[in-house]
Amino acid sequence: MSLTLPSGEQKTIPAGTTVAEALKELVSNKERKQTIAARLDDRLVDLSMPITAAAAFAPITIDSPEALEILRHSAAHVMAEAVLALFGKEVQVAIGPAIADGFYYDFDRAEPFTPDDLARIEEKMQELVALAAPFSRETMSSAQAIALFEKSGQRYKVELLKDLGAETVSLYRQGDFVDLCRGPHLPHAGWLKAVKVIKLAGAYWRGDEKNQMLQRIYGTAFFDPKDLKAYLLQIEEAKKRDHRKLGKELELFAVSDQVGPGLILWQPKGALLRKIIEDHWREEHYKNGYELLFTPHIARRDMWKTSGHLDFYGENMFSPMEIEEVSYQLKPMNCPFHIGIYNTRKRSYREFPLRWCELGTVYRFEKTGALHGLMRVRGFTQDDAHIFCRPDHLEEEIFNILDLNLHILKTFGFESYEVYLSTRPEKSVGSDEHWDQATAALKLALEKKGLAYAIDPGEGVFYGPKIDIKIKDVLGRSWQCSTIQVDFNLPERFEMTYTGEDGKEHQPIMIHRALMGSLERFIGVLIEHYAGAFPVWLAPAQARIMNITDAQGDYAEEVYAELRRGGVRVEKDLRNEKLNYKIREAQMQKIPYMLIIGDKEVEARQVTVRLRNGDNLPAMSIPEFAALIAGENEAGRTGACNS
Amino acid sequence: MSLTLPSGEQKTIPAGTTVAEALKELVSNKERKQTIAARLDDRLVDLSMPITAAAAFAPITIDSPEALEILRHSAAHVMAEAVLALFGKEVQVAIGPAIADGFYYDFDRAEPFTPDDLARIEEKMQELVALAAPFSRETMSSAQAIALFEKSGQRYKVELLKDLGAETVSLYRQGDFVDLCRGPHLPHAGWLKAVKVIKLAGAYWRGDEKNQMLQRIYGTAFFDPKDLKAYLLQIEEAKKRDHRKLGKELELFAVSDQVGPGLILWQPKGALLRKIIEDHWREEHYKNGYELLFTPHIARRDMWKTSGHLDFYGENMFSPMEIEEVSYQLKPMNCPFHIGIYNTRKRSYREFPLRWCELGTVYRFEKTGALHGLMRVRGFTQDDAHIFCRPDHLEEEIFNILDLNLHILKTFGFESYEVYLSTRPEKSVGSDEHWDQATAALKLALEKKGLAYAIDPGEGVFYGPKIDIKIKDVLGRSWQCSTIQVDFNLPERFEMTYTGEDGKEHQPIMIHRALMGSLERFIGVLIEHYAGAFPVWLAPAQARIMNITDAQGDYAEEVYAELRRGGVRVEKDLRNEKLNYKIREAQMQKIPYMLIIGDKEVEARQVTVRLRNGDNLPAMSIPEFAALIAGENEAGRTGACNS
Repeated sequence: MSLTLPSGEQKTIPAGTTVAEALKELVSNKERKQTIAARLDDRLVDLSMPITAAAAFAPITIDSPEALEILRHSAAHVMAEAVLALFGKEVQVAIGPAIADGFYYDFDRAEPFTPDDLARIEEKMQELVALAAPFSRETMSSAQAIALFEKSGQRYKVELLKDLGAETVSLYRQGDFVDLCRGPHLPHAGWLKAVKVIKLAGAYWRGDEKNQMLQRIYGTAFFDPKDLKAYLLQIEEAKKRDHRKLGKELELFAVSDQVGPGLILWQPKGALLRKIIEDHWREEHYKNGYELLFTPHIARRDMWKTSGHLDFYGENMFSPMEIEEVSYQLKPMNCPFHIGIYNTRKRSYREFPLRWCELGTVYRFEKTGALHGLMRVRGFTQDDAHIFCRPDHLEEEIFNILDLNLHILKTFGFESYEVYLSTRPEKSVGSDEHWDQATAALKLALEKKGLAYAIDPGEGVFYGPKIDIKIKDVLGRSWQCSTIQVDFNLPERFEMTYTGEDGKEHQPIMIHRALMGSLERFIGVLIEHYAGAFPVWLAPAQARIMNITDAQGDYAEEVYAELRRGGVRVEKDLRNEKLNYKIREAQMQKIPYMLIIGDKEVEARQVTVRLRNGDNLPAMSIPEFAALIAGENEAGRTGACNS
Repeated sequence: MSLTLPSGEQKTIPAGTTVAEALKELVSNKERKQTIAARLDDRLVDLSMPITAAAAFAPITIDSPEALEILRHSAAHVMAEAVLALFGKEVQVAIGPAIADGFYYDFDRAEPFTPDDLARIEEKMQELVALAAPFSRETMSSAQAIALFEKSGQRYKVELLKDLGAETVSLYRQGDFVDLCRGPHLPHAGWLKAVKVIKLAGAYWRGDEKNQMLQRIYGTAFFDPKDLKAYLLQIEEAKKRDHRKLGKELELFAVSDQVGPGLILWQPKGALLRKIIEDHWREEHYKNGYELLFTPHIARRDMWKTSGHLDFYGENMFSPMEIEEVSYQLKPMNCPFHIGIYNTRKRSYREFPLRWCELGTVYRFEKTGALHGLMRVRGFTQDDAHIFCRPDHLEEEIFNILDLNLHILKTFGFESYEVYLSTRPEKSVGSDEHWDQATAALKLALEKKGLAYAIDPGEGVFYGPKIDIKIKDVLGRSWQCSTIQVDFNLPERFEMTYTGEDGKEHQPIMIHRALMGSLERFIGVLIEHYAGAFPVWLAPAQARIMNITDAQGDYAEEVYAELRRGGVRVEKDLRNEKLNYKIREAQMQKIPYMLIIGDKEVEARQVTVRLRNGDNLPAMSIPEFAALIAGENEAGRTGACNS
């Protein structure tokens, strides 16, 4: 029986050899000790799996991309084993998959788990890990498995098996615990050297709110305790950077029960930050040949029928309002309004490309439970634009968009991206020719821009192919922000035309694009990326003046007025408080520069400049400081530096 | 019997003397010939009225403020007489009052009047005027009057009389026509030397849409034909300046049936104009110590209950939307959101005054029939601000608001105002002490600012006194824009407090203010004020480059790029068209500067500068032209000039 190794080499082994045995023949001892599973053709299997047919064979070592998921899935089983051991076999176990950063297991238990319980569960898991029980796979008929779980009283497993309706199923057993599971798993629990119980949350059985609410315990696991430690530190760091916490401390934004969840109230400092971002955005768009639009927040329901939003997006829209017996709805998107402006008169190819942008505030329904600070809201402002052009403009326009996109992201300090090109899905509108042409244009533009990208086959929107860009923040987390979408659908639905060079009417191509995506969400990411210590050009307060004693009050006021006139966003703290106290408060507010004024500074008509990290700059004159800020503003806006 | 003249002089006349007879004794012949009625104490009376008791007596001459209304009211009677004469006594006459700019009469007639009919009516009126029939007054019992109108078949008059339920009523008769009327009227129709039928419109009987739709014919009348001519010219001029017409021609804004009436779509040029105004507004507010806010467009219905808007403003609000069984409504005002931000934490007197501003887009219900371009809409952006302060800040804050207010209006070219101070109405909240204090503060601030103002007694809002400022446009028309209102109500309703110097909790004073009022409406006024020829700093396109032949195309592109880099809002028209054609188009678009480029200009690296009025400036270099524009921008923004 022949196995093809990743190197392409072919090896012959006897049929029925297990993976573990085969490994002894095929890989070095060192590699074998790092191997926890294998891939046979497209299937991941346990080390204990007998190989029964010729296949491509690849060991899954602890460095393989698939390894963590296997480890964490096994950890979930061990967590369930620990819970049953601690809280009795009456506890119902539901499901326990690996997820992006770890794993969870859902339990049905009358009493809620306490933080103490979570600590005990982790302890128990460590005990079980020390026993290093092997994960053993059994296959049996569905009926046998049902009987087994009925006997042990695990009714969720019984329900799953009945719904599954398979002929045979696989179960995994380690120690006392048995679970319905496709596998594969670690050879034994001893691999779980770095496992951590993280938190408790509620979750409905099968995610359906009509079902029983279960208790979901989250955990994570790594091969190396060092990796676990780094991860926990990152969580700790992420908590410190939580934009909801910083938003409150820095008085950037608030959400109020009185107004309603998911609706952002921008406090003065947050609104100033937003204004700086908006101004920058408008400026860059103007420079790049875009024209600004403003459009209303509501439109007749009939328009949303024409656009198709009611059909394919209706459940995300707010319910209608009646005006003189006509129904209106809040806008979830800006596109039909821009099309409305396009359609105010006949258009000619001579005007193309039309690049129309708007900071348009849209409203979309989200469940209260899904709302999260600025990241997931019910009202947000898209940095939207629509480009109307001919097919032959497409490549250049996409290139220009990418160029502006990356430039703007860079000015905000994001220089690491993941780029995806999504191609035609099964259900879609538009001709093959259009799809091919547009997809080719997107690819060419990406390549011309020198961007590495992955293709998401079939993941385009039904109306056209798209490019998505995820930015990576300082903690390495990815955030979907930018999107560029070609649309063959709306121009058709709204009967858009232009007069071509041939004097005939044609249908324009429409591109939707947003660079930041949602201002709210983008600012949420910015807050976490910078931990609230914004670069100077973005900081709502760039400097704060502090006098040492009241004797310097007059000069401090003079400095304040002069800096404000000079375009510096400056505050003053002239209270009769100790300097250290004032400094501490300014540091808490993450203000880039503290301008300290004592008698010496009054004498020299200077300020002593302290940075928020505690460093000091040499004392300087007011014009020198204003020039420093102007320089940082310029460097920030142009992306030359992200101090 | 003693009459007191306006001079204070007393004259004795026999009881029963008519006004006309008395005038012969009391005033000069010249004045008498200009007199059309008189005032006896507070009552206006005909010349034919016998004087039966001592009274204050004043002649109403054609120059009296009341004279035009009497003239126009008489003109309405003559119009009705003409209509009955032309179209038969079956035509039902309803009511016919004088109004601000003229008069109207409502008719019930099966067939619609045609433009030709209107011309015939005017002609017939002139015939009747030539007959100079006297207006004669009769009084009779209500029953007699009902019988009279029943006999002539005028059922609206019968209905009016029955509803009136008076014992005796007065009727006026001229020629064949008799009308129920309080008077007074002209001595005879011969005074109507300058009368004009203007237009036809529909109107419901008694303004109630459940009633019969009538045909309303508008007209106007003046004593002097010169005044009529001037008025008609002004109407003509106003038509040319109609912002709806210019808005379409200059592509500033559009309204679409698809989106819905009263909802403005800002086209690129209008949006750019709006952006310039918004930037200017934000800049001036920042300079004046305001902080910016952004707040959502919807809030829970409960908040609108707390604010009282549902009670006193509910019928102007859009109907509710449901989100997870909670009702939300579009905001008709921004105030409760600003209060929400105030209430995010405890406040101290040290933070006061808080000056928070927002360009907040609000939605209010208006009947479709009432909508009018940008002037009356369903969605508009208020240039709103709220000041939270202590009572002792009030005068200074109001002064500062007035200062900023007049400055901003001046930058837009408005330097002529009508100012009103409205005092406590009968139904109101707040203590006498608060009202007195606030009203006094408003007065002091107005006086300190040197502003002449009129008092509107009892016309304050129920929650506090206010100042309203009407601006006068170039045609002398008044537009209510700015409002400054003290509010004792909302701080109470939302339980707002601050910690005072005494360490105790107090209720802050709240000031609402808007300078432009609604951006939409203000821009509508601006368009009409400037007839679309905006001053340079506001013009969406400040200059347009035109080449004479294709030979100058490259240099023209160079100039275009350099001016754009230099911050000039410049366009290019490099089409292969005759220069005159290009110039005409640019003039139609009211672009301030046309930059004309021929071989000579290429040679000298200059542009020839033509103004939109046809004048030429000397040829200049590109940096010179950019500097010219920069200077005009600066002059415009600072109100130094309104070129």
